[in-house]
Amino acid sequence: MSSNKVFIFDTTLRDGEQVPGCKLKQSQKLELAELLDQLGVDIIEAGFPISSPGDFQSVSEVAKIVKNATVCGLSRSVEKDIKAAADALVHAKKPRIHTGIGTSENHMKFKFNCGPEEIIRRAVAAVKYAKSFVEDVEFFAEDAGRSDNAFLAKVCEEVIKAGATVLNIPDTTGYCLPDEYGAKIKYLAENVKGIHKAVLSTHCHNDLGLATANSIAGVISGARQVECTINGVGERAGNTSLEEVVMILKQKLSDQYYTDINTKLLKPTSERVSFEMGMPVQANKAIVGDNAFAHSSGIHQDGVIKNRETYEIIDPLDVGVPKSSIILTARSGRAALAFRAKEIGYNLTKDELDIAYQSFLILADAQKEVRDNDLEKLLKQKVFA
Amino acid sequence: MSSNKVFIFDTTLRDGEQVPGCKLKQSQKLELAELLDQLGVDIIEAGFPISSPGDFQSVSEVAKIVKNATVCGLSRSVEKDIKAAADALVHAKKPRIHTGIGTSENHMKFKFNCGPEEIIRRAVAAVKYAKSFVEDVEFFAEDAGRSDNAFLAKVCEEVIKAGATVLNIPDTTGYCLPDEYGAKIKYLAENVKGIHKAVLSTHCHNDLGLATANSIAGVISGARQVECTINGVGERAGNTSLEEVVMILKQKLSDQYYTDINTKLLKPTSERVSFEMGMPVQANKAIVGDNAFAHSSGIHQDGVIKNRETYEIIDPLDVGVPKSSIILTARSGRAALAFRAKEIGYNLTKDELDIAYQSFLILADAQKEVRDNDLEKLLKQKVFA
Repeated sequence: MSSNKVFIFDTTLRDGEQVPGCKLKQSQKLELAELLDQLGVDIIEAGFPISSPGDFQSVSEVAKIVKNATVCGLSRSVEKDIKAAADALVHAKKPRIHTGIGTSENHMKFKFNCGPEEIIRRAVAAVKYAKSFVEDVEFFAEDAGRSDNAFLAKVCEEVIKAGATVLNIPDTTGYCLPDEYGAKIKYLAENVKGIHKAVLSTHCHNDLGLATANSIAGVISGARQVECTINGVGERAGNTSLEEVVMILKQKLSDQYYTDINTKLLKPTSERVSFEMGMPVQANKAIVGDNAFAHSSGIHQDGVIKNRETYEIIDPLDVGVPKSSIILTARSGRAALAFRAKEIGYNLTKDELDIAYQSFLILADAQKEVRDNDLEKLLKQKVFA
Repeated sequence: MSSNKVFIFDTTLRDGEQVPGCKLKQSQKLELAELLDQLGVDIIEAGFPISSPGDFQSVSEVAKIVKNATVCGLSRSVEKDIKAAADALVHAKKPRIHTGIGTSENHMKFKFNCGPEEIIRRAVAAVKYAKSFVEDVEFFAEDAGRSDNAFLAKVCEEVIKAGATVLNIPDTTGYCLPDEYGAKIKYLAENVKGIHKAVLSTHCHNDLGLATANSIAGVISGARQVECTINGVGERAGNTSLEEVVMILKQKLSDQYYTDINTKLLKPTSERVSFEMGMPVQANKAIVGDNAFAHSSGIHQDGVIKNRETYEIIDPLDVGVPKSSIILTARSGRAALAFRAKEIGYNLTKDELDIAYQSFLILADAQKEVRDNDLEKLLKQKVFA
């Protein structure tokens, strides 16, 4: 079986940027759009043009500078939104309008106060109107995670007939378990008439910590586009982390799927997004956290020194991290101490190591980390005095 | 079917604390142990007593003060480690020794340089020795995620015969996909002779962002203990987040499983662990991040104002967060503006709102967030001047 391309739809500049604290100036959006284009994402969702004059302008400028990726603008299924998106995308090489409406009982009842037939009517009208401006129209079925599958399939069928090229099935509230979300995608892949004319897309939120697992379950069940953000930024607990999905597909499922992401740019892109947004990435974040390739317990350090793969399943170089680090703390063992001593020029004998280790533990119990200069001082005072 | 208890094994003070930057003083370990006990965790892994004199002392003091939870100490399958753990736990009301050895090809070859028979011999000897001190002995099969299932089953059988009460099946390197990890637990549940005498435990790492999904897959497949940490701290990309697993079991699977966690203490406990370790939790962290219940896009705010459940699947009060927040940014719509204006005492008419909204968007495009004092100034200057 030949492997399948999974399209990476990056929404850092839209779902990520809309979050408290993450707002970007136009110049920052442009810089990040260039980085995302270099990273190799297939689609850049650049913003929500109707939301504010500033965002309209930003999407419009992003559309002008992006060289390779499709540039996408968000809209509700409302004519003025779609028109604003179309206007903002007029200079894009590959424009896409993203439009849609809520399809869950809850959203129909409380947000739209209308029934299923009216939802379908509005959805179809929105897609047709968007299609009058661009060829590439993505439809989102908001709160699809909590929507009835049979109704969802009906909506999908109708919007495909209206010209939708991509069907986005968002788990808007981060509600689904992986099996549940996978089953939903599978149901649509198997039951929507005309589904071969469109790409199914995942868009998962991380409210229960399952966005990545749900996205992967979606791909395995037939989705060929994943919507995600750098560092998993996004509304509430955020969106699926681009870096996690890409590395899972590469490390675990490369016989079946591939993406066009240049993974060596993951860490630098993550750092830049974090810096521009002023949103710190926690040290224990998968793939791009500062500790993702740091080893500190004695058991792990000993293993990694013997063979990197005892505790690492990803080569740090593959994601743009220079090397794994062996950090000395009170949980480090003799092997790590000898390793770091050697790195700073001391080849310790067994006896020297024994002496050094006792002094090291006293120092390490008293402070968080023993750095190279502490170690050098210790060796000079306690071993080579 | 009556629902099953899932035991929560917290290793914040061991796997969490061993990490670069996370080291705790003894006084801090004691404070956190008390909080974990109040939170309702079933087992507190307090440290790795052989690793340093300071950690031995910490485990020993934690063992004295914990009222309800089992207190556990880690050891390699080496006599001096096990003896140190037993000594440190001597005052615990419910002591548990956690011992084990690597069972993957990689670990056998590169760490232990021995064959499978020798691994089983050492595993059995370690469990028997631990059993000479305490009744409750947990065995870990390190790197079980990459271990051969048939061999793993054989190891499990032998250590159960030697007296192990809990079998920890760690995905040490964060290698497994949820289906893969679930299948491993299911295989053991179905193929290990005497498995009814022991509890199967998950211990997942988050290198690919799948620790939570893997732990849940483990529970669904037969595990009844989950090893986890507050905020997901831990080696490299960290361990399974306690708060995520607990809330998934509560929100999605309460007809089948329950834990004894007092979920209203999740947010305060998270804040305290973050503070004591000096490890920030990212704003978009599930359940406990600062933005986990914050809504900022116009579409979402409008929905939440109409009905909280349009965008929230968890009541913030349930995890100790006072309320969801509606934050004004350039992506906010009229509904959110009217909502916040009302909160500060201005009931705007439709015309007033229209005027305010235009000025609001200009201000919001220029800054990250529009706070209540900004809004009051704007209303006074532009609407009620």
